[in-house]
Amino acid sequence: MSKRYVVIMAGGKGERFWPASRLKRPKHLLPIVGDKPMLTQTVDRLDGFVESENIFVITNAEQWEGVCKVCPTLPKENIVAEPVGRDTAAAVGLAMLMIKQKDPEASLAMLPADALIKDWKGFQRALDVAFSAAEEASRLVTIGIEPTEPATGYGYIQKGDSVSRHNEIDIFKVVEFKEKPDLETAQSYLESGDYFWNAGMFVWSVQAISEALGMFTPELKTGLDEIERRMDEGEERDPLLAELYPELEKISIDFAVMEKAENVVTLAATFDWDDVGAWPAIERHFPSDSSGNVADGEAVFESSSGNIAVSGEDHLIAFIGVDDLIVVHTEDATLVCKKDQAQKIKDLVKGLGPDRV
Amino acid sequence: MSKRYVVIMAGGKGERFWPASRLKRPKHLLPIVGDKPMLTQTVDRLDGFVESENIFVITNAEQWEGVCKVCPTLPKENIVAEPVGRDTAAAVGLAMLMIKQKDPEASLAMLPADALIKDWKGFQRALDVAFSAAEEASRLVTIGIEPTEPATGYGYIQKGDSVSRHNEIDIFKVVEFKEKPDLETAQSYLESGDYFWNAGMFVWSVQAISEALGMFTPELKTGLDEIERRMDEGEERDPLLAELYPELEKISIDFAVMEKAENVVTLAATFDWDDVGAWPAIERHFPSDSSGNVADGEAVFESSSGNIAVSGEDHLIAFIGVDDLIVVHTEDATLVCKKDQAQKIKDLVKGLGPDRV
Repeated sequence: MSKRYVVIMAGGKGERFWPASRLKRPKHLLPIVGDKPMLTQTVDRLDGFVESENIFVITNAEQWEGVCKVCPTLPKENIVAEPVGRDTAAAVGLAMLMIKQKDPEASLAMLPADALIKDWKGFQRALDVAFSAAEEASRLVTIGIEPTEPATGYGYIQKGDSVSRHNEIDIFKVVEFKEKPDLETAQSYLESGDYFWNAGMFVWSVQAISEALGMFTPELKTGLDEIERRMDEGEERDPLLAELYPELEKISIDFAVMEKAENVVTLAATFDWDDVGAWPAIERHFPSDSSGNVADGEAVFESSSGNIAVSGEDHLIAFIGVDDLIVVHTEDATLVCKKDQAQKIKDLVKGLGPDRV
Repeated sequence: MSKRYVVIMAGGKGERFWPASRLKRPKHLLPIVGDKPMLTQTVDRLDGFVESENIFVITNAEQWEGVCKVCPTLPKENIVAEPVGRDTAAAVGLAMLMIKQKDPEASLAMLPADALIKDWKGFQRALDVAFSAAEEASRLVTIGIEPTEPATGYGYIQKGDSVSRHNEIDIFKVVEFKEKPDLETAQSYLESGDYFWNAGMFVWSVQAISEALGMFTPELKTGLDEIERRMDEGEERDPLLAELYPELEKISIDFAVMEKAENVVTLAATFDWDDVGAWPAIERHFPSDSSGNVADGEAVFESSSGNIAVSGEDHLIAFIGVDDLIVVHTEDATLVCKKDQAQKIKDLVKGLGPDRV
């Protein structure tokens, strides 16, 4: 088990959960659903699967302190701040380098920081199977989510034949990664039964991902090799990253590698999963009253239905005669948004002054 | 001029402007519209018309401190706390007693604490005429408001023939006081041109109101006489009120006297007037953007129209995709209310715990 590592990607800007989330306290640092910050839940979910020393978090300079605070069980040197964001392929490469220094024979899982998974046993079982699949044949493995609706907000993974089976879970060859589809296409994916949602959960060996990066993104790989060489010469990590990381090619791991590689396999998540992508999603995780209102905190509803109230501590939100709103109170800002227009929050935040983001 | 007194009625419960207003800081203690609390504006509006010593405020125990704070120019002994609310006739009687002790020949105006009147010159001119009308023939005088719409939220005053004229303002005999009408009736009142809104502004001599109370509410008058007798014997006002005031008959001055007396006259307000009765009214007093949104404080509006934002200091309210809402932020509570349902605020407040009212 000591050859297994987990890298948690914790670099979101926190725009979609404004005003609760801010640049310095994005969604993964907040208990959006549950008693602990989403990132803490993600770390806790690995308890018993890997040792704390084998868990890395990749974040950014603004959030580094916050991440350290919500991950008290992790060694501080395992919490890495990218000097600038260079998309997921560079982050994967960075994680791969750090783990390679510890053990070139290791495998690693990449997980998002802020997905909600309650069945941690089912999660660990699937993750174990994914590691086994990666270890046995140097494959690139992704854990897919069986779609429950024709969602247009996720990429899809088209599965092919089963290539092996571990602990009663089938491993399928990936036929193709698909970009976020339109509704009609999503509907056809759903009906075919051949597609998973791409949840950004990957497992691969250091060797396999290193080779794949070299094959499909040679420019990025050259940059990573330079960082590796100078780390091997004893240079300190953070000043080195400050110098070289900003020059790395900026590309997503999906586009750079997963969509191109041949040896990609997938398995179905045998656990609940919700990426809680925006405010309307929290509705699924709080009890609702008889009019479909939900409250995270104190709220009263009069002649109102289908509302979501997020009031924080010691604050009451009173609704009268309104339907289908998201209302979020924070100390210095309040959001009042029609539920079906939550995608506009991000744009609104871009227009705000620096003291409100 | 020293025979003229003004009594300001400042006893509202502050329910309609919740959550900004509370039991201890009702509307008249807040700058709902304007830079100063409504009561302070009411006192300031009398500047040059009567001396501070001739202005009384009748409030309640909960609000007494707050009233003292926003009326720094008034002698503290002129700020009187009713031990319990006994409706307006008892308050009128109490004011009448206190002024009678200073000068039995005096006249007094009763004014609400929280109406918005910007034209203080026009106001003082009309008030002067009302005093003259009260002084010349021991009449009960009320200043009416010329209706601009068929409002169903006010009582109406049916005017008859002109009985005299002062400073180019006609004094009309009152034919009848009318209760709050339905819309159809209100429409007919508006069209006839014979009706004013009853704004609760009265002027009368101590002698005239004393006689009227004796004639139409003898039970109340007996109670007031007892208070007067014991005050004359040198008893202190506040302990005396604590003992006797709760026993006084509870009835409105409109119902007790104004609707029954014969010698009632009225004149039209020669000034702007807005009772700012509930949140939707503040819309008239703030500039609106091109989509009809108004903000008292910081707000941003995206795909939203006709909203009212009251955000207080250093707090931003962001609206996305919502129309015709009132959103009011305070430290411990937020209101989100459809504009046309603001009348429900009062009922909602009744259902709240003691720490929120």
